[in-house]
Amino acid sequence: MSTGGPAPESEDTVATALHSVSRVRVRYAETDQMSVVYHANYFVWFEVGRTDLLRRSGWSYRELEAEGVSLPVIEAHCEYLQPARYDDELDVRAEGRLMSPVRIEFTYELIRVSDGAPLATGRTVHVGLDRRGRPCRLPARVRAIFDAPDSASR
Amino acid sequence: MSTGGPAPESEDTVATALHSVSRVRVRYAETDQMSVVYHANYFVWFEVGRTDLLRRSGWSYRELEAEGVSLPVIEAHCEYLQPARYDDELDVRAEGRLMSPVRIEFTYELIRVSDGAPLATGRTVHVGLDRRGRPCRLPARVRAIFDAPDSASR
Amino acid sequence: MSTGGPAPESEDTVATALHSVSRVRVRYAETDQMSVVYHANYFVWFEVGRTDLLRRSGWSYRELEAEGVSLPVIEAHCEYLQPARYDDELDVRAEGRLMSPVRIEFTYELIRVSDGAPLATGRTVHVGLDRRGRPCRLPARVRAIFDAPDSASR
Amino acid sequence: MSTGGPAPESEDTVATALHSVSRVRVRYAETDQMSVVYHANYFVWFEVGRTDLLRRSGWSYRELEAEGVSLPVIEAHCEYLQPARYDDELDVRAEGRLMSPVRIEFTYELIRVSDGAPLATGRTVHVGLDRRGRPCRLPARVRAIFDAPDSASR
Repeated sequence: MSTGGPAPESEDTVATALHSVSRVRVRYAETDQMSVVYHANYFVWFEVGRTDLLRRSGWSYRELEAEGVSLPVIEAHCEYLQPARYDDELDVRAEGRLMSPVRIEFTYELIRVSDGAPLATGRTVHVGLDRRGRPCRLPARVRAIFDAPDSASR
Repeated sequence: MSTGGPAPESEDTVATALHSVSRVRVRYAETDQMSVVYHANYFVWFEVGRTDLLRRSGWSYRELEAEGVSLPVIEAHCEYLQPARYDDELDVRAEGRLMSPVRIEFTYELIRVSDGAPLATGRTVHVGLDRRGRPCRLPARVRAIFDAPDSASR
Repeated sequence: MSTGGPAPESEDTVATALHSVSRVRVRYAETDQMSVVYHANYFVWFEVGRTDLLRRSGWSYRELEAEGVSLPVIEAHCEYLQPARYDDELDVRAEGRLMSPVRIEFTYELIRVSDGAPLATGRTVHVGLDRRGRPCRLPARVRAIFDAPDSASR
Repeated sequence: MSTGGPAPESEDTVATALHSVSRVRVRYAETDQMSVVYHANYFVWFEVGRTDLLRRSGWSYRELEAEGVSLPVIEAHCEYLQPARYDDELDVRAEGRLMSPVRIEFTYELIRVSDGAPLATGRTVHVGLDRRGRPCRLPARVRAIFDAPDSASR
């Protein structure tokens, strides 16, 4: 299953798979004294990717929250392959997949623009919460977008 | 005017001046590739000092917010004297002073514990806001605590 | 007493297992507009736990770096059970285990002090690097401390 | 067009004054539970502006560090006019001015793109340090760029 790579070419997947690519540049604030980016900051870039992915889906996370649905993280994972460094330009590739009516998974790939090297891969799982903080079904349009036809088999 | 130093000895100021000392240890996350603490993070330590100072005053900022009063920063300033480094233990000395019924100023001094060296001095100004985001008078007890006798003359 | 790893089974393992508990208080800077702590910040607390654990082992991470060995993160994972909130006092429980001569795993449990509720569990994997950035064996004393008697069988 | 500093008075100064505009979008990680951006994060955006300004000048801060000159902050100031909120697009306008051969000042203006509202103004002062951490003259080309014709009189 492609994660964030160049657009899948087959019409079947093009029709349903949603992915996005976000460009970030490493800030000095994000480095640590090892002269690489501090590991926790990768999750902030994943958030940038996720936000853009949701925006591409036709609604923004800001709107979702305005409607009373929040999407807190219940699980986060990252594998670090090569260090990101100050001033590097990076592409955050993001994809989403519905795990259940109340739960959605995003996967990420972090690519260094200068040479295409993969720097990290990651994954976050989110649950829909209503205004009272109780789990709730994600809005129908969100479910429609991220519920890929082949997701049942995964 | 003392800022965060050892308790002022004169009874007049002892009676009214409130200050606090908070201990923090520098986190790796707070350093940058210059092998010192990134400058913006000093303001987070000032927040730690301010929070403890408010707690010492008899109410916490958490309680204040629960009552519907928030204290956003409208001005922030820091002068950096010597760099803080990873794993350093630091004391944040904080003091508060009412500027008007809706406005309060905190001053900070950051001291390296190992040798007492001053690393930074800072200042933040805050305004009281009600639940609708409009400026509001700070609670009476807060005003009583931070309204030093000599503040009228400043 | 043991947390985040296989329970110590006997006096032998009790004697060698090393764990630590670090107290942190949630900073306002660590919250987000969901009124809970932003998920990436849990990894910073894990770093606080890991640093204290290493300090308890008889050497500090600062000293380790001074000797030319760094321990970058190559994998990070967190599961979020209940949200941490502003001003909460939290205990970070950390344990370490040697995975190979060049690789070490730390596991974490985050506990809310007021009621003992577990808020999160996590795991980071680190690799020893020398000054040139090449994988290197961890110092002998580190290997001795974190190489639990039963680790060979895991 | 000039922002955050004395208005360019003539074509001469227009010719030499260097400024830049950087676009950022507010990250969820940057908000706090007041549902606005945490005040310390504005300084990170100022860094983004300063970095782009330096890049426009013909050399990057990354290159400067590679040559052995670092530019740590010795003073930082920000005034907050209106809150920045999640997902807002913001323009960071930055300008630089040499204060002495070893010291440079940057001023910033933060503008909300949607309506042009000014959200904050800021200022940082930096000193050139050599590899040993001693104050040093900034490279000649940097001094040439930021040494405005009228700066001698200020």
